Amino acid sequence: MADINLKTHQAQFKNALYLESGRILEPFEIAYETYGRLNDTKDNVIVVCHALSGSHHAAGQYDGDTKSGWWDALIGSGKAIDTDRFFVICTNTIGSCFGTTGPTSQMYPSLDPYRLKFPVVTIKDMVKAQRLLLDRLGISKVHAVIGGSMGGMQALHYAVDFPNLATHIISLATTHATSAWAIAFNKVAAQSILADPNFEGGNYDIDAIRSQGLRGAAIGRMAGHISFLSPESMSVKFGRDYVSTDGLFDLFGKFQVERYLDYNGDNFPKWFDPLTFIYIIKAINIYDISRGHDTLESALQKTRSHLHLFGFKRDLLFLPTEMKAIDLAMNAIGKGEMSHYYLVDSDYGHDSFLVETKKFEGIIADILERK
Amino acid sequence: MADINLKTHQAQFKNALYLESGRILEPFEIAYETYGRLNDTKDNVIVVCHALSGSHHAAGQYDGDTKSGWWDALIGSGKAIDTDRFFVICTNTIGSCFGTTGPTSQMYPSLDPYRLKFPVVTIKDMVKAQRLLLDRLGISKVHAVIGGSMGGMQALHYAVDFPNLATHIISLATTHATSAWAIAFNKVAAQSILADPNFEGGNYDIDAIRSQGLRGAAIGRMAGHISFLSPESMSVKFGRDYVSTDGLFDLFGKFQVERYLDYNGDNFPKWFDPLTFIYIIKAINIYDISRGHDTLESALQKTRSHLHLFGFKRDLLFLPTEMKAIDLAMNAIGKGEMSHYYLVDSDYGHDSFLVETKKFEGIIADILERK
Repeated sequence: MADINLKTHQAQFKNALYLESGRILEPFEIAYETYGRLNDTKDNVIVVCHALSGSHHAAGQYDGDTKSGWWDALIGSGKAIDTDRFFVICTNTIGSCFGTTGPTSQMYPSLDPYRLKFPVVTIKDMVKAQRLLLDRLGISKVHAVIGGSMGGMQALHYAVDFPNLATHIISLATTHATSAWAIAFNKVAAQSILADPNFEGGNYDIDAIRSQGLRGAAIGRMAGHISFLSPESMSVKFGRDYVSTDGLFDLFGKFQVERYLDYNGDNFPKWFDPLTFIYIIKAINIYDISRGHDTLESALQKTRSHLHLFGFKRDLLFLPTEMKAIDLAMNAIGKGEMSHYYLVDSDYGHDSFLVETKKFEGIIADILERK
Repeated sequence: MADINLKTHQAQFKNALYLESGRILEPFEIAYETYGRLNDTKDNVIVVCHALSGSHHAAGQYDGDTKSGWWDALIGSGKAIDTDRFFVICTNTIGSCFGTTGPTSQMYPSLDPYRLKFPVVTIKDMVKAQRLLLDRLGISKVHAVIGGSMGGMQALHYAVDFPNLATHIISLATTHATSAWAIAFNKVAAQSILADPNFEGGNYDIDAIRSQGLRGAAIGRMAGHISFLSPESMSVKFGRDYVSTDGLFDLFGKFQVERYLDYNGDNFPKWFDPLTFIYIIKAINIYDISRGHDTLESALQKTRSHLHLFGFKRDLLFLPTEMKAIDLAMNAIGKGEMSHYYLVDSDYGHDSFLVETKKFEGIIADILERK
């Protein structure tokens, strides 16, 4: 198996990024990874977009790490996104906390972090920044943009905002406009963080949180983990297994599902910054691909990309019907031939796009074969 | 329209209530309401059981109140549960905070509230206490027991624990054993309460919380409100309406669904005690109608009641398949004729049993007509 040629990069931009809000980021930087090799004609590019708490580390493994990138099952030598053929780019989005400019970055020219002075960024802004990076790399066409959840929102923005850039837009487990259900879960998460006295109105010691955690963010993340699953998958995964040795009638005894939530919740603030979390969910909440257009149909009017829209049967966070709505809109404007809707039969819930890649990797590979 | 003859009562029990945990409550009291009139043969009784945050105030309206009891749509003169014919009893469950003995009650002989010294109570215990009340009232047969959600769990316990008591058991929007999904939502609620410094490990000033609220309980209740609805009903109810006047790009601007969660969350601890909440969700989490029996089938073996099992199509907290499982178990033990499963076509979610009574009140009325 060929090496996937994992490389980590950091790009500095001295010019301003003009944000949808009217504010600017100046300067800004973008952390990104690449896999595979850019060919001479620079036409073998695939852009991968990450979800809420994801990063640019989508595939491969660093020396000393025990875990691979978040979509390693899909990206690699001989895999659906074949790094032997394609040059794959995944950037950490604007507003995130893994090396790209976000709320914990220094607010130039001071050395202080932005914290709550960071501007609200949108999914459109994330894609705009990525496009500037592609420009710098001399890439003016990409074979495909692919992402799930918030990554799928970015993919759709590529289709609408840069209608001639990508041949294929592959958008999984997402929507054309974030629903009240998703906003409600985000609400619990944000309120829980804000209520924690150790959050200190955003002025917490960033390093201290990284080592000690933040209870409010842990609890907020628990709510998130519910939204990523489904009643069916939780029953299969955890059932009613009881793990405390202190008996069923102990008020604080735990079921297996509670231990899972504790574990994932408690660790979360140690690797994902709480202020960043508030900014990223804000971006998700206000995401509406139709903003600035009259309707979803008019937003999609100019795209020349093929849209590949993946809904997952038990995804409650982003219902398959929301993906289907995009397909219906494409059909309504006479672009049915460029729109392809796939319903993946899975009980897993929203996280299907991350954990049940076996169920759709074949379709992804097929799409990428097409011109 | 005849008066429903709403009466509020308080029953004192000097004897001990032996709990499933092996602990006892002694003395204990039960607050309850009655509607309609007990006939001479004492055979026109319907027991109504309330849900998590419900109370014995199921129907009618008190002087000065703007709101009626929680199932007023269903209970009253000429309604599905017709108080012209039936004598309806609804008790506040053991462990609750509306007059029945619970964590905020005085721990005899001291005047101090139990707080965390209160024993864990179960749904079985709630029903056992209710049965003692019926004994005291000289009622040895009831026409029906009915309840939704935690009330439906109680109804099922009547069928299993007192197999000769009720002619009809009507259980809505519940399960035979609480699922991991429901436990997960309860986890977020409990953890959020426990994390609030003003909870003070359960030693908070009860009156102060009642007037000022408790942020942790408010946030926990927000998670609860998500679980009561469905993605579909939230989209219909709130859509993406934005209610803040400070613009979409304000980090703390609110969508309509957020305002709804704020309102319901913030008010919750002012009318529902946080410690009580922790105890009641514990009872729900450890609810399993089969406990003490080998299987669900063997638990149902002795019942002589007709089971009427109502699932609601978009109820995620208690899936219709969980109600259907009870029906299948009844069939498996040759009691199919005594088991009746109804699937109510509703998009509303778990709260359907409270807000979409129009969709099933006719069936309830029909059932109550039967001998």
